[in-house]
Amino acid sequence: MIIVMRPDSTEQDVEQVVARLGERGYGHHISRGEERTIIGAIGAPDHEKEVVAGQFSVLPGVERVVPILKPYKLISREYNPRPATVMIGPARVGGGHLGVIAGPCSVESAEQVMQTARAVKEAGATALRGGAFKPRTSPYSFQGLGSEGLDYLAAAREETGLPIVTEVMDVRQLDGVAEVADCVQIGARNMQNYDLLKEAGHCGRPVMLKRGFSSTIEEWLKAAEYIAAGGTLDIVLCERGIRTFETATRFTLDLSAMAVARRETFLPIVADPSHAVGISHLVAPMALAAVAAGADGLLIEVHPRPDQALSDGPQSLTPAAFAELMRQVRQVAEAVGRHV
Amino acid sequence: MIIVMRPDSTEQDVEQVVARLGERGYGHHISRGEERTIIGAIGAPDHEKEVVAGQFSVLPGVERVVPILKPYKLISREYNPRPATVMIGPARVGGGHLGVIAGPCSVESAEQVMQTARAVKEAGATALRGGAFKPRTSPYSFQGLGSEGLDYLAAAREETGLPIVTEVMDVRQLDGVAEVADCVQIGARNMQNYDLLKEAGHCGRPVMLKRGFSSTIEEWLKAAEYIAAGGTLDIVLCERGIRTFETATRFTLDLSAMAVARRETFLPIVADPSHAVGISHLVAPMALAAVAAGADGLLIEVHPRPDQALSDGPQSLTPAAFAELMRQVRQVAEAVGRHV
Amino acid sequence: MIIVMRPDSTEQDVEQVVARLGERGYGHHISRGEERTIIGAIGAPDHEKEVVAGQFSVLPGVERVVPILKPYKLISREYNPRPATVMIGPARVGGGHLGVIAGPCSVESAEQVMQTARAVKEAGATALRGGAFKPRTSPYSFQGLGSEGLDYLAAAREETGLPIVTEVMDVRQLDGVAEVADCVQIGARNMQNYDLLKEAGHCGRPVMLKRGFSSTIEEWLKAAEYIAAGGTLDIVLCERGIRTFETATRFTLDLSAMAVARRETFLPIVADPSHAVGISHLVAPMALAAVAAGADGLLIEVHPRPDQALSDGPQSLTPAAFAELMRQVRQVAEAVGRHV
Amino acid sequence: MIIVMRPDSTEQDVEQVVARLGERGYGHHISRGEERTIIGAIGAPDHEKEVVAGQFSVLPGVERVVPILKPYKLISREYNPRPATVMIGPARVGGGHLGVIAGPCSVESAEQVMQTARAVKEAGATALRGGAFKPRTSPYSFQGLGSEGLDYLAAAREETGLPIVTEVMDVRQLDGVAEVADCVQIGARNMQNYDLLKEAGHCGRPVMLKRGFSSTIEEWLKAAEYIAAGGTLDIVLCERGIRTFETATRFTLDLSAMAVARRETFLPIVADPSHAVGISHLVAPMALAAVAAGADGLLIEVHPRPDQALSDGPQSLTPAAFAELMRQVRQVAEAVGRHV
Repeated sequence: MIIVMRPDSTEQDVEQVVARLGERGYGHHISRGEERTIIGAIGAPDHEKEVVAGQFSVLPGVERVVPILKPYKLISREYNPRPATVMIGPARVGGGHLGVIAGPCSVESAEQVMQTARAVKEAGATALRGGAFKPRTSPYSFQGLGSEGLDYLAAAREETGLPIVTEVMDVRQLDGVAEVADCVQIGARNMQNYDLLKEAGHCGRPVMLKRGFSSTIEEWLKAAEYIAAGGTLDIVLCERGIRTFETATRFTLDLSAMAVARRETFLPIVADPSHAVGISHLVAPMALAAVAAGADGLLIEVHPRPDQALSDGPQSLTPAAFAELMRQVRQVAEAVGRHV
Repeated sequence: MIIVMRPDSTEQDVEQVVARLGERGYGHHISRGEERTIIGAIGAPDHEKEVVAGQFSVLPGVERVVPILKPYKLISREYNPRPATVMIGPARVGGGHLGVIAGPCSVESAEQVMQTARAVKEAGATALRGGAFKPRTSPYSFQGLGSEGLDYLAAAREETGLPIVTEVMDVRQLDGVAEVADCVQIGARNMQNYDLLKEAGHCGRPVMLKRGFSSTIEEWLKAAEYIAAGGTLDIVLCERGIRTFETATRFTLDLSAMAVARRETFLPIVADPSHAVGISHLVAPMALAAVAAGADGLLIEVHPRPDQALSDGPQSLTPAAFAELMRQVRQVAEAVGRHV
Repeated sequence: MIIVMRPDSTEQDVEQVVARLGERGYGHHISRGEERTIIGAIGAPDHEKEVVAGQFSVLPGVERVVPILKPYKLISREYNPRPATVMIGPARVGGGHLGVIAGPCSVESAEQVMQTARAVKEAGATALRGGAFKPRTSPYSFQGLGSEGLDYLAAAREETGLPIVTEVMDVRQLDGVAEVADCVQIGARNMQNYDLLKEAGHCGRPVMLKRGFSSTIEEWLKAAEYIAAGGTLDIVLCERGIRTFETATRFTLDLSAMAVARRETFLPIVADPSHAVGISHLVAPMALAAVAAGADGLLIEVHPRPDQALSDGPQSLTPAAFAELMRQVRQVAEAVGRHV
Repeated sequence: MIIVMRPDSTEQDVEQVVARLGERGYGHHISRGEERTIIGAIGAPDHEKEVVAGQFSVLPGVERVVPILKPYKLISREYNPRPATVMIGPARVGGGHLGVIAGPCSVESAEQVMQTARAVKEAGATALRGGAFKPRTSPYSFQGLGSEGLDYLAAAREETGLPIVTEVMDVRQLDGVAEVADCVQIGARNMQNYDLLKEAGHCGRPVMLKRGFSSTIEEWLKAAEYIAAGGTLDIVLCERGIRTFETATRFTLDLSAMAVARRETFLPIVADPSHAVGISHLVAPMALAAVAAGADGLLIEVHPRPDQALSDGPQSLTPAAFAELMRQVRQVAEAVGRHV
């Protein structure tokens, strides 16, 4: 970290900073410019960097503290420079393999899941998604079928062979979900539910971590670091749109975030255009854009009857629209050297 | 809800919408303008409004669905027009009584809490805040003292008489926290942790609900509705800053949100300028602004030694600065007809 | 427009609204639901819709006014349902033809422009971009060469045959720029410089209108309506990134806005990934994403020596990187049925 | 500026950076930490800092460039540490004197302006505002009366003695406006209209610079630096709300920005709650909040008949509501040691 002193700071202020650095086990390096004195802290210990930066920022004469090192480690390219592949059951995500995870927003019935699973399998999806536990903004909306929904997903896997990705909202559901799911999803609203992140890290399944809709890329990577610190590197990141001032779409799919994160981490990154845009006719262009931008996979909501869906009908594709999308996805994927 | 048809919609499209409304138990009213046909749905049943709106939006010929009614009820002024007062232990929040809830971000030691509690009590605070369970963006930062921290808070209450407000992050901590705390706080990052909201609603304590830093006012009120549906109307809302493009402050304190929410709900609303601005010298002007704008209370971070704080040092006031702030708060409160 | 009355509105309030509608030349339609009375205004006259909506919103008993019609007309699909093609000199933009407009951010010297023009022509660009008049956030930064810069652009066109797109910042420059340029660009910071928009509409050249970095899609389209009202429909829209809370990129390229706008207007829409991301290694993935999402063209910053550029060096591609990008652009374009 | 090298940078990369610093006239200071090498640039010349930072950021081996010095000078506290007072005609803004600038959004008629001027004068306003040239998002809305409107403002000043603040949108209007106005206002949409800023700096009148609704505090101050570089330090800054994801208010009044800017510059800063919130019943709480937060003045929209206003009716106060607000403003001002 670098400590920038105020123009009116005194020699004594500088000495106090240096003394405090020494107490903390840091070396230092002073650079006196014409307008500012700058103190470099050398040999930063691994832990508590952010806390220490906060403490130094309030010492007398300090203008600001500039962190230099990244606040994550286990998941960073500095730790492991090669892109990783994560297996969701038999489906490979990363390393040129596009994972296409499709299915309904909510599991509503055995029939609905089975019908959707068959259709997306037929169209070429590599995994099945569907929520048994649902985060809903209104307490009066359908809240999901719970463990009954997990059974329906398992039945659909049994028949189609598609591995299952499903969300866990609460640490108490984790064991039950991990028993059935091939990949445990942490939703955007729980990206900073730190207890859940830690425990998901040792639930025995790969974890898909959605970006919080108002989280910076750095916060997203730090949340992934929590999972990694919990015990696994089988993590798939998922960009699903951020909240901006624009209201014509539900969120704004931030594809450049995917490209930035790829430089920082070796973890595979997928995109969820369905939740990002919230309107079915915008899903296809954004899915193709995500593939062209280098996504390692897609999450796509598909429902046999969007006009009867208990959640997210407006953004769900029909099976026919999904099949047409898959055709285009294959072409764009090929154009950028990837395949489904 | 109002259903606006596309200019190219057919008579058959209109008929299908009307038929579906009938199936759902709605009456309807058709208004044919020169450029658009509009269908009003009448007698909407209480539940599932948002789901239904989504379903109608994907019917053929529908341009958009405009909801008319508010998506919350128990906490709305339509349900109860008079502003409510919530008691946090002996401290009254609302109805002209300003609650001033002060203390450290994290409980770090028995000594630190006791020292702070004495100082804020002396300066005129009406409740003590302090986190035993801490949501931290880095897994390598101090994570809080847990239940040991609760003991220190209880000891400080024992001596000073100040009631305690402390955060719960995980449903599994709820019983333990509710046993000790006079008011259970749900943090911004958990504002949409719906399981936690529901259970907090029947934990037997008042609940302070912070606004998620990217949540709309409507989402905030819907989250409060979850708590109310869980079983209590002893809810205090807390505006604590939203995330915007501006990075000079940690968040942007949205005082007009407080004024908007006041029209919608009878629940008291307090402001947390400390977390909003993140820089100690900005806390006082924003605390005064919040009082002038009509806040029912303040959350203020105070630490005996901000340069040694294990969290949020940069935004913590010293006891002396807090005492000076309280002097000004009293003056501004009086100017707008309130008192501490 | 629809006028929603408050639950506590009186019969007299309703009558006043109806009377005012009559004075304004509107018919009306009253729908009395169980919880709200709703008044539909019929036969809205063409002008002043927004002003009128504001006036009704403050009448006694009115809860809110919901506009139904779009606030733009000349540029809308309702006016002209078929996608248009705009010619920039000999280069076709729209209708399956991808316009690739490449060149330096600023015109810095005759040599720099000529060298860049040759390189981008060779790589397959269809037009040359370069700023002679530059909007710079600091008064101490290079402000552009002005009309001398226009001469250098004209010389480069003379040699390479590439038509020229260049920015106009001030109405006083408009005639001079229009004399030389094949397409006049209105920058993001001037998207709501209404005098400039009106006059650009009859300058005799096609106009490229960049989206303001904090403008909604609707505001962008209304700005285009100003140009159209000024006298031309030869307008190319350009999405160039919006300001969000994310700071890892300069702006956030909002590709879904492009897809939304395409439904609303027949005007061609191009994307400027260079300004959006601000970092050269992110330009290629986002350019490919834009093409896959359906862009009618790209603006790409290219500089022979980014480390000596007087503006936007960090986001400029070298000629070699641009040539490689063009190879990939052609492949992705083909995969989605377009060509350069 | 500080140049942080990548962990995989070579000795040669460091040498190249150092050599380039030398060519540019900088000294340097190298600090080799365990994980990063950092190069401090010393003795930065005054101009082109941002351009230079961009150029260094693309050199091989460079991870990022951290600017240390502020990008403005003439308006900074480092240049002049004492808060300034600006005179708008006879009205003092700053130095404990609250300027209250009230009046209609648009000048609509001689009668409307005169009536409003009398009312706000009576209630205690110190200046009259009113737009003759209006930026309107729709080309079909009322565009202002132009120079005729200036005459009406002058007549109102003649009678009431209130000085006039009015907006200029276009450099071509500047002379005409400056001839009549006591203070020339640059609106939010023109905050980065650099030609206008420069010329306003030597128009012979004080300039009120509104913050762009998506401009950072730093950009706002850099825009003020343009005016200062143009020739005057008689500049009043005006915070008028920023665009955020929240749509319940028109914009989000960012009062902490005012507090941040106050540390950076000696210029007085006023707040415009009317444009920020866009709804009349929210104006009063936010006006009081602004005063409590330390504003040097207020801009308040007042209209004799908001339900007939040709612009901004929904946010306009009636003369009676304004008089009541002034009463409260005086009390809060007194509580924080200021006076109208």
